[in-house]
Amino acid sequence: MPEPEFDALCIGNAIVDVLARTDDDFLVAEGLHKGTMHLIDAERAESLYAHMGPAIEASGGSAGNTAAGIASLGGRAAFIGKIANDAFGDVYAHDMRATGVHFATPRLADGAPTARSMILITPDGERTMNTYLGACQALGPADIDEATVSAAAITYLEGYLWDPPEAKQAFRRAAAIAHAAGRKVSLTLSDPFCVDRYRAEFLGLMRDGTVDILFANESELHSLYETASLDAALAALAGDCPLSAVTVGAEGAIVVSHDGASKVSATPVDSVVDLTGAGDLFASGFLFGVARDMDHVDAARLGTLAAAEVIGHIGPRPAVSLRGLAREAGFDL
Amino acid sequence: MPEPEFDALCIGNAIVDVLARTDDDFLVAEGLHKGTMHLIDAERAESLYAHMGPAIEASGGSAGNTAAGIASLGGRAAFIGKIANDAFGDVYAHDMRATGVHFATPRLADGAPTARSMILITPDGERTMNTYLGACQALGPADIDEATVSAAAITYLEGYLWDPPEAKQAFRRAAAIAHAAGRKVSLTLSDPFCVDRYRAEFLGLMRDGTVDILFANESELHSLYETASLDAALAALAGDCPLSAVTVGAEGAIVVSHDGASKVSATPVDSVVDLTGAGDLFASGFLFGVARDMDHVDAARLGTLAAAEVIGHIGPRPAVSLRGLAREAGFDL
Repeated sequence: MPEPEFDALCIGNAIVDVLARTDDDFLVAEGLHKGTMHLIDAERAESLYAHMGPAIEASGGSAGNTAAGIASLGGRAAFIGKIANDAFGDVYAHDMRATGVHFATPRLADGAPTARSMILITPDGERTMNTYLGACQALGPADIDEATVSAAAITYLEGYLWDPPEAKQAFRRAAAIAHAAGRKVSLTLSDPFCVDRYRAEFLGLMRDGTVDILFANESELHSLYETASLDAALAALAGDCPLSAVTVGAEGAIVVSHDGASKVSATPVDSVVDLTGAGDLFASGFLFGVARDMDHVDAARLGTLAAAEVIGHIGPRPAVSLRGLAREAGFDL
Repeated sequence: MPEPEFDALCIGNAIVDVLARTDDDFLVAEGLHKGTMHLIDAERAESLYAHMGPAIEASGGSAGNTAAGIASLGGRAAFIGKIANDAFGDVYAHDMRATGVHFATPRLADGAPTARSMILITPDGERTMNTYLGACQALGPADIDEATVSAAAITYLEGYLWDPPEAKQAFRRAAAIAHAAGRKVSLTLSDPFCVDRYRAEFLGLMRDGTVDILFANESELHSLYETASLDAALAALAGDCPLSAVTVGAEGAIVVSHDGASKVSATPVDSVVDLTGAGDLFASGFLFGVARDMDHVDAARLGTLAAAEVIGHIGPRPAVSLRGLAREAGFDL
């Protein structure tokens, strides 16, 4: 097996975030579930945008953020996702390449515009997402470049890929290529409502050996196993997946394998400004660590360090070099 | 004279900022003068964008930022500026209206895209701007709505308006309408190189009574009077304009009138993240204060408070309510 060219290939919805501060009353008035992702159509996107406050735009998307975080740690990352030939697509492609991420997915020539997610940030730092998938609906198996998948130590996939119609075929093709090349496959559960939509399929992917490394947060895990008990969910997880990393908010993360569970504390932060990207950046650190054969607990520590950086400012990607922060924290990167 | 409907009407180039962190070496390699604004064409914009790092996008433009700041202080602001019918134009119009600023300038139907400025932020927080004017080149006298100008206590104009070909006629028309309606006219010198391009015209506007209130920073003032002596420049300014506010960076600001000069300290900040918008937001506070008949020194204090907020984060407009901050600081707003 040749040395991997990439620490990770991240595949997901390519989305420009439209980030605005708001208050809790606005979420209630708009009928939104705080802390979750809502899929919206073009009409709803227009109406919500007309009602929300002034915003900033930043390239986002869960797997895209994870790829950017791996690059910021000094890793080699690739990304596959679908953008359109428009201004937001130009922004997305620029940011990905300027971050040092390999990104060569053909753009959607005619059709829907580049995806955007209106992200409402409440004073507690929680983010509530409203995603118009646009061009992401066109991601399909043909976009999965075999050479790139084969060259990545880990292929990392969003649960959100179950939403666009053909993306799950892309997902399955990527996983098959990765395993045929002797590489690992990772899945993030993405969102509790996403899990609710595709619970049986996600459990199937875990139990049939498609997924080697699983990422989830508490609410996704509760949704997956339909239980209010974290311990029960962790025990079930230990049987369903060889390696899992469960983020538990301000408590940090729990690494679960067939050997048992280990807890890693969160990296302290002065103040939580915007939780957008927290889980994505945790995945950056953990995936990078696993790809470089770090101890799993150290990999999770790198994940909490990356997450702590991104929640200290508005926007879903690192504002400073994560490699620099990791070195200051004693990591030998 | 009827009560003004707006505290200020701000007229300027409507620009979406593309903000990226960089190091000083990049400025040197690209031949850029740190802390100033460079006008660039579409080709240079493309080339610079290809070389710069990942960015975020935020509505900007000097006068637009000032209008947003006045609205954030609880004031009534209007804005005139030219955008195109494109995605960045939609972003600009949204942000202006969502901030509560009256903005009704007809969009450019066919032609150049919405203006953008690539703003490079160095580790010291200084910003170096590279502006592609695009649709702003089409701003002309027909865009100056007489009713809006007449309804504003102060019409505030950018020196940058001297760059697009017909905007100076728009400027002159706005100033004439404002004075005919018994209102005040204010000018910001914008940038030392802008002053260098139009020194004689700016001095003419001050000396012929077109400008009632002038804004400048130290380097613009040095450029205007071609002197290295701040005292000499301030003395000249006192003779040339009834009321001026000169920002002097971390030192704060100096209010200059025929009665003499008064210094106001800067509002302390924990750390300077991004100086983009500092001068614009100082103008928000000062203009709002003057429009509400505050003492000039208090108006300048409100300006330094607004400037301190905007330099604490990436982006050219307030991230929190300036009215709330001003009340906490003891202002009766």
